[in-house]
Amino acid sequence: MDGVDVPGRIAVLGAGSWGTTFAKVLADAGREVVLWARRESVAASIRSEHRNPDYLTTAALPENLDATSDFDAALAGAQAVVLGVPSQSLRENLQVFRDAVPAGVPVVSLAKGVEIGTGLRMSEVISSVGRIAPRRVVVLTGPNLAPEIAAGQPTAAVLACSDHDTAVRMQLASATPYFRPYTITDVVGAEIAGTGKNVIALACGMAEGLGLGLNTAASLITRGLNELTRLGEKLGALPATLAGLAGLGDLVATCSSPLSRNRTLGSRLAQGSGLEAALEANGGQVAEGVVSCRSMRDLAHRHGVDMPITDGVYRVCYQHETPASMIGVLMNRPYSPE
Amino acid sequence: MDGVDVPGRIAVLGAGSWGTTFAKVLADAGREVVLWARRESVAASIRSEHRNPDYLTTAALPENLDATSDFDAALAGAQAVVLGVPSQSLRENLQVFRDAVPAGVPVVSLAKGVEIGTGLRMSEVISSVGRIAPRRVVVLTGPNLAPEIAAGQPTAAVLACSDHDTAVRMQLASATPYFRPYTITDVVGAEIAGTGKNVIALACGMAEGLGLGLNTAASLITRGLNELTRLGEKLGALPATLAGLAGLGDLVATCSSPLSRNRTLGSRLAQGSGLEAALEANGGQVAEGVVSCRSMRDLAHRHGVDMPITDGVYRVCYQHETPASMIGVLMNRPYSPE
Repeated sequence: MDGVDVPGRIAVLGAGSWGTTFAKVLADAGREVVLWARRESVAASIRSEHRNPDYLTTAALPENLDATSDFDAALAGAQAVVLGVPSQSLRENLQVFRDAVPAGVPVVSLAKGVEIGTGLRMSEVISSVGRIAPRRVVVLTGPNLAPEIAAGQPTAAVLACSDHDTAVRMQLASATPYFRPYTITDVVGAEIAGTGKNVIALACGMAEGLGLGLNTAASLITRGLNELTRLGEKLGALPATLAGLAGLGDLVATCSSPLSRNRTLGSRLAQGSGLEAALEANGGQVAEGVVSCRSMRDLAHRHGVDMPITDGVYRVCYQHETPASMIGVLMNRPYSPE
Repeated sequence: MDGVDVPGRIAVLGAGSWGTTFAKVLADAGREVVLWARRESVAASIRSEHRNPDYLTTAALPENLDATSDFDAALAGAQAVVLGVPSQSLRENLQVFRDAVPAGVPVVSLAKGVEIGTGLRMSEVISSVGRIAPRRVVVLTGPNLAPEIAAGQPTAAVLACSDHDTAVRMQLASATPYFRPYTITDVVGAEIAGTGKNVIALACGMAEGLGLGLNTAASLITRGLNELTRLGEKLGALPATLAGLAGLGDLVATCSSPLSRNRTLGSRLAQGSGLEAALEANGGQVAEGVVSCRSMRDLAHRHGVDMPITDGVYRVCYQHETPASMIGVLMNRPYSPE
């Protein structure tokens, strides 16, 4: 790795759970990190008390992690930029940030999603709206539950970038004894997996809310990965990505976590809450699966891929089908060789 | 399916947890089932109280489920035979049973394992010791935690047989509204997955016992399926089997279950018990992973396949390596593209 130019100063935009956690990882890896928070009170608390008052409130943040609510200040002189804003607001945020992003630096996307209407993956939104060359856009993914990483638990991760050297620069910038990033060049596979897993987690939550056990959850994970792999292949992804940490790994972690927003929402839907009431009971936190079942279903239709679980989750969220009926349909498909 | 000869009378040999559960499934599917138990007291309790006093003690067994401690009586007139004895004693049991097994009937294997020394899979042991043609041997597998099935929870399963028609006969014999068997012809893939999953579950238990979270478990499951797939392919298995319910599905269910004997044993080992003490604390119940890490490692060496998790579990069980060191080695392999 001689001669690789490792970014020294990094701006992380967005002080949510994952943005805060990855900022901590980068600071622990020896980078000079500035975390941008929308609200100054959050930035001030991170600066003076080394805690995020809203997310992962028990995690002690490193003293060398700076914070600001001024994005121009955060981005000035940054040698890499991490986008930690939610996928639903990524486009509008980019329109605000883009002129302040230094030219030529790697831009790491923490957001997972496919835009409704355009069908663009988040890395494509970053390239097109942010005017950033695809070879500079890196997607961070993998079996990465933020609270575990914030607690310093050992975790493997995946950095996907069409340009291998850019991925390696971010790998060297973020590696710590507890955070082990691997590199891949299959951005499509990383993003399709990262988007679809939230839909499958919603289905697992519905099964759980119906009182069904681990046999059903394991079947949903298996069939879910299968349908994501079929869609990914149509879009040019490598099957190995879906079978790896970015696909299977992330899917299993997300579907297993009792803290997953998507699983919790699915469970509430199964217990009879309507979508709006269930979303409200989730404390207003976004469950990405509700959006992603729409955008993934659109992609599936456009590319002629059969995705029965994604389709079922969509019917529950938007067409008043009950979770019990949806899971029943899935578990009672006609007999055939597997 | 017109004209398929569905077995009416079925003998299930072995009244352990899985044998009892599958006997219940077959009885619920309308078969005339006789369950053979080694001890007459167990058979008598199943006959008169419709409960197994040793396993799944709360499950009410169907009234049409007969039981006996006389294997000749159980096998007389059977149109299919289910072998529910542990893999470690399958060979010696077959030597006793084989002359009483009616000629030409399907024989279903519930045992998962590869024999130490010979390297034979259980279906191969059944063929060779039981003198039963491979086209009659069916392997039942999938994400099938017995307590959930005994409770009537909906579950998908897999029947693997080199002869598709034989698999279909057992499919029709065992399908109920809560038990949905699919058929495949890849017996090798089904058995390699079914054997290896217990080794991966031991590794997951060790990680759990060390206080590690779901990110680590998801990485172990992902890498574990990867090494099982590589071994399976060398032996002629189809990758789709490993990616399906018999592979990924069973692996996820087993590694997720807090009741898994293998996970529990791994956790005890990580908390500092030696192998013998940990086995004893498991109430003397066999944790198949302890045997399977040896036989799978032998197969891997013989076929030149790198299986780092299987190898690590072996070192902990037989070479005094600590789980902390083993998991550390796995999580800190050299950086590379994934």
